[in-house]
Amino acid sequence: MLLPDIQTPTLLLDEVVCRRNIARMRAKAYAYGLRFRPHFKTHQSRRIGSWFREEGVKAITVSSVGMAQYFADDGWDDIIIAFPVNLREAAAIDALAGRVSLGVLVESPSVAARLNAELHAPVDIWLKIDTGYGRSGVAYDESDKLQALMRSIESASMLHLRGILTHGGDTYQAAGPADMLQRFALSRERMIMAAETLRKYHPDILISVGDTPGCTLAEDFTGIDEIRPGNFVFYDVMQLHRGVCRVEDIAVAMACPIVAFHDARDELVLYGGAVHLSREYIADARGTQVFGLVAPVDGQTWGAPIAGAYVARISQEHGIVHLPAEHRLSLIEGDLLAIIPVHSCLTAECMKQYRCLDGTPADHLAGAFPHAATSIPYYSSEGHAL
Amino acid sequence: MLLPDIQTPTLLLDEVVCRRNIARMRAKAYAYGLRFRPHFKTHQSRRIGSWFREEGVKAITVSSVGMAQYFADDGWDDIIIAFPVNLREAAAIDALAGRVSLGVLVESPSVAARLNAELHAPVDIWLKIDTGYGRSGVAYDESDKLQALMRSIESASMLHLRGILTHGGDTYQAAGPADMLQRFALSRERMIMAAETLRKYHPDILISVGDTPGCTLAEDFTGIDEIRPGNFVFYDVMQLHRGVCRVEDIAVAMACPIVAFHDARDELVLYGGAVHLSREYIADARGTQVFGLVAPVDGQTWGAPIAGAYVARISQEHGIVHLPAEHRLSLIEGDLLAIIPVHSCLTAECMKQYRCLDGTPADHLAGAFPHAATSIPYYSSEGHAL
Repeated sequence: MLLPDIQTPTLLLDEVVCRRNIARMRAKAYAYGLRFRPHFKTHQSRRIGSWFREEGVKAITVSSVGMAQYFADDGWDDIIIAFPVNLREAAAIDALAGRVSLGVLVESPSVAARLNAELHAPVDIWLKIDTGYGRSGVAYDESDKLQALMRSIESASMLHLRGILTHGGDTYQAAGPADMLQRFALSRERMIMAAETLRKYHPDILISVGDTPGCTLAEDFTGIDEIRPGNFVFYDVMQLHRGVCRVEDIAVAMACPIVAFHDARDELVLYGGAVHLSREYIADARGTQVFGLVAPVDGQTWGAPIAGAYVARISQEHGIVHLPAEHRLSLIEGDLLAIIPVHSCLTAECMKQYRCLDGTPADHLAGAFPHAATSIPYYSSEGHAL
Repeated sequence: MLLPDIQTPTLLLDEVVCRRNIARMRAKAYAYGLRFRPHFKTHQSRRIGSWFREEGVKAITVSSVGMAQYFADDGWDDIIIAFPVNLREAAAIDALAGRVSLGVLVESPSVAARLNAELHAPVDIWLKIDTGYGRSGVAYDESDKLQALMRSIESASMLHLRGILTHGGDTYQAAGPADMLQRFALSRERMIMAAETLRKYHPDILISVGDTPGCTLAEDFTGIDEIRPGNFVFYDVMQLHRGVCRVEDIAVAMACPIVAFHDARDELVLYGGAVHLSREYIADARGTQVFGLVAPVDGQTWGAPIAGAYVARISQEHGIVHLPAEHRLSLIEGDLLAIIPVHSCLTAECMKQYRCLDGTPADHLAGAFPHAATSIPYYSSEGHAL
């Protein structure tokens, strides 16, 4: 029996593939003269962070104050929290700003003023720009709003305007690589337009962009100063499906025990469901929902995806795999199959830890602390904290 | 500012509503002469478990071996693991069987034989029956398969056949309450048919069913011995949408800080996304995707849902709320809104803990231990375990 010590769904991490992804993106950033500030929200791991450090990376992006604390405690000292400032965490932001070089996102003058009033240490301010994605940020062409925001920051003694930042998430909605590159280029041009509005007053405004599809495929980064991709560290079925990566670039897979066969309908049941994988899916060319690709577990790692096999349905703990009869072979209950996840960021968050192929663990923030700032005592059956 | 100590997305739990849901379902079970074996996978909390115990509940259902261990350690001693036996956990199942009355699910003779070979303590066996849901289990009308399975258990010294069990999850796919009741009735009849096949040899075969829609709405439980609903402890928007509960029966809501307004498109951005809520959604009558309803935070609790407001889009940490202009009022960044979750089981799993309205915490298994059996050391930047 392969990987005999695995009892429950386990997120395997191939360090060689992961380090290759890191090295490739770093090399690309340097080749284009870009500052490389990888987003750590995909992996949320100090151990994986150390692989970036070995590549010379010094600046990072995170998506929460808690995540910034986690990496600051591990020695990272140049961090952008790429999420609109949450004023309820102003005290925690202030404490962090006192010990690392901290950047935060602002998109309204009132938040700028109220944040400033709570700070004792200076923070770098990045203006969140919406280049068409429509999630958050000031629209790139609202120059009056941008200038009003700029002035609110100029008048705030603890806020230092550094640049403008966008997520460019609409590359994820592209029809294919060509469309994606067009969207990336359009977003880039709009960022330059927004920067020009501000550079009349602040010539040193920087432009920061970040999305794995664009950063992986684009070859024109004119005007961009910094990239912040995150997902590329693992990639996943969504990126594969969109032509962003090859299957051999995917660095994580879930090892799941087989618990039942239903040969009459070419299905088997895995221990591995929504609480492990997340509910994210892609629709394939025929419109079929795919919650993951399926690969054999081979020695201490996983192999190439099995043709025609996929996770067809998912419930809280069950994954229902469609497996063509010619691949049924001699599998028995208790054997492992690997699921290549649709969205690796969410799967990692669900699993809260990794197992490298040599059997050693890698940490994930979600396994280290719950979401809330305070830890929760256990309760006995009488309701008393233990 | 309300609930001033809340800094980040926080799962609020209304103990009064939750206890009322527990008491109502328990009273219904007793009124129909049914054994009440609630599924604890929705809440996964020892503290909430204690509220069941105060209602006289002695037997529970869980969905994993780890969950069984968690509640066994809290004094629960009659537990069914309602998930097909995972042979990789046979040693852990054996250890549990040595200290509590343990039931497990079997649906194949080979698993029965292999499990038996690993056990030193007896376990109760429940045959998993598929009454039409098509996820897992032996089809109710495959009497040859059922009898072969029965014989495999008779010949296994550590396996004691207790009954048959189904999830009846297709009530979740019903078009409305009437259709749901029809599906529940059909599943019940098919369970009786499967039981009759076995009762020729084992007259004392029990029938166990479990799904919140059926157990909440049905009034005919003829032939059923035991019910195992889980979600009713909290209910959620999915149950509300299907006519199973009223909005005032929903016992959990996520308090989320507002981080940005986009008044021009009647939207605001909450700190609260897929890693907090899960990606589950419902489609409303016009086909609009709804990732949660939105309610005001009122004093120490949440109010009735705001008419026309809903979580329209979701990404990893962002929730984009559509809020009609007439409800925009004087809200400012940093205020809280409550999101009533679409699927409370998954939201609780994401959040890993609860905050009761009096400010005290309640535990969740996912906040107590990661999924894997062994705990993971942190890694320093040099890759050494700390």
